[in-house]
Amino acid sequence: MSQLDDDTAVHPSGNGTYTTRLSSAWNISTTPNGGYAMSSVLRALVDVAGRPDPVSVTVHYLRPATPDADGTITTRIVRSGRSATYATATLVQDGTERLMVAAVLADLSAPVGTGPAPELTLGAPAIPPPEACTDRGDLDQGVELPLLSRVDVRVRAGAGGHATLDGWVRLRDGSAPRSTTLPLFADAFPPALHATLGRVGWVPTLELTVHVRRRPEPGWVQAHITCDDVASGMMIETGTLWDSSGALVARSRQLGLLLAPP
Amino acid sequence: MSQLDDDTAVHPSGNGTYTTRLSSAWNISTTPNGGYAMSSVLRALVDVAGRPDPVSVTVHYLRPATPDADGTITTRIVRSGRSATYATATLVQDGTERLMVAAVLADLSAPVGTGPAPELTLGAPAIPPPEACTDRGDLDQGVELPLLSRVDVRVRAGAGGHATLDGWVRLRDGSAPRSTTLPLFADAFPPALHATLGRVGWVPTLELTVHVRRRPEPGWVQAHITCDDVASGMMIETGTLWDSSGALVARSRQLGLLLAPP
Repeated sequence: MSQLDDDTAVHPSGNGTYTTRLSSAWNISTTPNGGYAMSSVLRALVDVAGRPDPVSVTVHYLRPATPDADGTITTRIVRSGRSATYATATLVQDGTERLMVAAVLADLSAPVGTGPAPELTLGAPAIPPPEACTDRGDLDQGVELPLLSRVDVRVRAGAGGHATLDGWVRLRDGSAPRSTTLPLFADAFPPALHATLGRVGWVPTLELTVHVRRRPEPGWVQAHITCDDVASGMMIETGTLWDSSGALVARSRQLGLLLAPP
Repeated sequence: MSQLDDDTAVHPSGNGTYTTRLSSAWNISTTPNGGYAMSSVLRALVDVAGRPDPVSVTVHYLRPATPDADGTITTRIVRSGRSATYATATLVQDGTERLMVAAVLADLSAPVGTGPAPELTLGAPAIPPPEACTDRGDLDQGVELPLLSRVDVRVRAGAGGHATLDGWVRLRDGSAPRSTTLPLFADAFPPALHATLGRVGWVPTLELTVHVRRRPEPGWVQAHITCDDVASGMMIETGTLWDSSGALVARSRQLGLLLAPP
């Protein structure tokens, strides 16, 4: 069992409902990291769907989750087809919905689609190895990051030019990434906007969609994250993750709200 | 009233529920185009939220919709905040859920976020004007496309190299695009995979997320669509739309299933 397994344990309580308890070990400041809070819900979805890989996960962050507090996850199987299951879930704490998830679960050990599949993928950019990058903990981000006790995040400073961030991520306890770890990894980096434009305030995620493309091999996961459109006080951030073999394992896109620092 | 307005009319029937009737005029072969079927649901969501712009729309296509048939849209306001409303909806026809939508609605006439917003956007590639591009109707796609009686789609043949498609889109009746028209436009092009790799079979969308970034000016909307990762019989397609003033107005990403032609 990894720390992530321990901290996202869910217990079925009947009718597709699960109980969980959110840890404070994955906090950004005093609030659980969104990717972590989503991971418990994802675990319930994998369980109820009986399919191990979240090929599409959309999460809407409604309100901050509460750390060191119980939560109830209510799932609904919307449709279970031959090769994929559509399901939704909400996380409620203290009577209030904190986040909602809509997902497509499948089994990536065999092809999901049956059609001709041309060879086509996106290679990882060449970046310095993790030990030559900057520890996220060494960046001045103006907040405490308990999250980094659980996730080891390295970023490449000075990517230059655009609001782009490169880096690496792994679980701090050394356990290997799984398909269900990738949505958490996609949400573990600082905003790419911060990397080149300086701190621009707080950037809460309104909506995040992660597509898991392949099961990751053990080792560091490489990330490339870019923000290329800011409008109406909101920004779009797009990410790509590769495993230690260089295979593209996940893509992400989020809509973030730009808020002045508190 | 545009044809799109007529064909996506929704009628409130109480408790956040709406009735609608899907037209066959927007069909791909004998099935309503997904973007069109979603547009009626979007209209109900805008109405129930009281906010005009869908800044994030995620649709899961569960089953094909039925043309020339009534449908019931059931909406739920999940959270209505100071600047944005989170809401979900399903479209049911004949007792069966056809699609589900999770959306964030806001008002783009004023900034949604309050933080410092650096100037950052992505310019449109220079491509030949619509009249120098290929009418989608002139491509051999192996299916009837009644959709093209409502939407005028031009594509740039031979983009070369990657599975990339450039083109233009507008409503056939000449009415101006609105923020709610953009998700439809994002789903009106042929698969980018087809453009350079030939027909690779049927590519039904499992999940599509569109972010509307700005309200479009009247005129043609330019599109750039790329597929850069195929795995496990599924593909990721990413699109960007610009209005006639060159402003980036929407971004899209979908997970598509690769199926052999029927």
